[in-house]
Amino acid sequence: MVSFRLARQHLLAALLALACFTPALAQTTDPLPSWGNGAAKKDITEFVARVTAPGGPDFVPPAQRIATFDNDGTLWVEKPIYVQVVFAVDRVRATARQHPEWQKKQPFKAAIENDMATLAASGSKGLLQIVAASQAGLTPEEYDKTVLAWLAVALHPRFNRPYTELVYQPMLELLAYLRANGFKTFIVSGGGADFMRAWTEKIYGIPPEQVVGSMGGLKFEMTRDGSPALINLPHIDFIDDGPGKPVGIERFIGRRPIFAFGNSDGDLQMLQWTAAGSGARFMGLVHHTDAEREYAYDRHSHVGRLDKALDEGTAKGWTIVDMKRDWTRIFPFEP
Amino acid sequence: MVSFRLARQHLLAALLALACFTPALAQTTDPLPSWGNGAAKKDITEFVARVTAPGGPDFVPPAQRIATFDNDGTLWVEKPIYVQVVFAVDRVRATARQHPEWQKKQPFKAAIENDMATLAASGSKGLLQIVAASQAGLTPEEYDKTVLAWLAVALHPRFNRPYTELVYQPMLELLAYLRANGFKTFIVSGGGADFMRAWTEKIYGIPPEQVVGSMGGLKFEMTRDGSPALINLPHIDFIDDGPGKPVGIERFIGRRPIFAFGNSDGDLQMLQWTAAGSGARFMGLVHHTDAEREYAYDRHSHVGRLDKALDEGTAKGWTIVDMKRDWTRIFPFEP
Repeated sequence: MVSFRLARQHLLAALLALACFTPALAQTTDPLPSWGNGAAKKDITEFVARVTAPGGPDFVPPAQRIATFDNDGTLWVEKPIYVQVVFAVDRVRATARQHPEWQKKQPFKAAIENDMATLAASGSKGLLQIVAASQAGLTPEEYDKTVLAWLAVALHPRFNRPYTELVYQPMLELLAYLRANGFKTFIVSGGGADFMRAWTEKIYGIPPEQVVGSMGGLKFEMTRDGSPALINLPHIDFIDDGPGKPVGIERFIGRRPIFAFGNSDGDLQMLQWTAAGSGARFMGLVHHTDAEREYAYDRHSHVGRLDKALDEGTAKGWTIVDMKRDWTRIFPFEP
Repeated sequence: MVSFRLARQHLLAALLALACFTPALAQTTDPLPSWGNGAAKKDITEFVARVTAPGGPDFVPPAQRIATFDNDGTLWVEKPIYVQVVFAVDRVRATARQHPEWQKKQPFKAAIENDMATLAASGSKGLLQIVAASQAGLTPEEYDKTVLAWLAVALHPRFNRPYTELVYQPMLELLAYLRANGFKTFIVSGGGADFMRAWTEKIYGIPPEQVVGSMGGLKFEMTRDGSPALINLPHIDFIDDGPGKPVGIERFIGRRPIFAFGNSDGDLQMLQWTAAGSGARFMGLVHHTDAEREYAYDRHSHVGRLDKALDEGTAKGWTIVDMKRDWTRIFPFEP
């Protein structure tokens, strides 16, 4: 009986080993069809080949293949303004009756009046107040439902499509390609973690526990009926942007990425932190250069400004995606 | 060529499907040999069978099979005092020369003099000061090395063995059993996340990104030579204990566990939060009842007090492990 069991286990081990070759064989078809055939695609596939070659000088064990992606402007559209801000403004307007004090107080007054110019002028401090107000008092489950209900009906003003359709097809392919090669893919975004976690698994295949983002205050309490509850508080606890990104990575992931992709100066420190590790590294930036199919912006944009990171990335030879040239398809709905 | 490739893919799919049966077949041998045959083991295996039965009324998809474990007293020994406190005291003593101000300031004076009674009397506030001081000024990599160097030489005062050998064999089996059944295993501990992350992958098979714990302040900066660095600050930012555990779970995992295991009142809120979800749930407590093989303590212990959680767990029918009765083997080194 023992020898039979051992033989069976050997057979299964052999089958499992065979099965593990599936991804490699499947790559006879192009895993990145929307990436054209430029330098960006070559950088990516060469990097992946280097770190996954068993016995090679740059081999990285699967457990250490951590890849981090910014969200707004890197995985989905961030123009004309961050999707979460649109949601938060809608939510402030929808709940304004319960908050008469907002009628005379900025930036709430601007939000209620849909005065985007004044709201934008309130800067990140103002936007964060709106964002915090949009989740205060809700349990995480309630907030989740609110976000999903909004995403189901809200449409992008230019593309007239749900925001979750405005994700970049080349990046969906890249996420899947990295995972097929043993990478663990994370989002590291200045956006609210809870806002993203409601939908990232379905849209990107990235589960909630691999989403790092900004976070509001959160409190545990026993409700009057004796059941435990978590309640969102009306302040921001952690801003996962700029120098906050390496801090968020260390706190939530606890390992330095070997692969990082961003699109703005808010990603610079994440890319610097990734670059400064030892061994093979990949640093990528999406440069929005296609006003026709998406948007063209960089150094002078309030949303997603790409200035210092463009200079540093150029100087240091990071991979800079020229959206117009490098992406043959931008959105999944394109033919 | 196409049909050949398809045929090969079908073959591989069949092999993969076969290979996926390995865990099920392997379970003809007992996956929990150190659990004896009492009620605790039955509770665990019945729960796992219910949530993994495809088409069953309690089926939970793998992505939602989140299991959270406390660390001190649940996965490894916490007596006579938390391992991290022993480390932190050693570290304070080793670096005392650089901090002349500690000579006259409690709780540092007590730590330097190895006066554990005075240190214990300083309460959790005092212990946290020692813990924060033990990592302040170090980069995460330096701290990691310091922890590993200490663990390589420090011995437990009673068992005279490295602390990493004083992990509970039944819990190692349980972690592996859950993972073989599609669960994702997390640590949710009041201990420092960085302290644990240095060794949890090797000892428990739990990677850094699945370790939730207390966290000190952390700052990103560019050093004088222009390279980016993260530096630990001398204060505690987040205490992942008691009501902090559900908060930590929501922030770091973003899903409610369906399975949680603890051993003290510091785990009560995590267990309540787990219990309050819908669908099948498992709540477990390790009750330290074996003074001969390990320790016996509960309601009156300063370290790992189990009082309110014992009452609530008993009243609500949670699984309470009687260490003496339910575990046939406690440590891996036992014959």
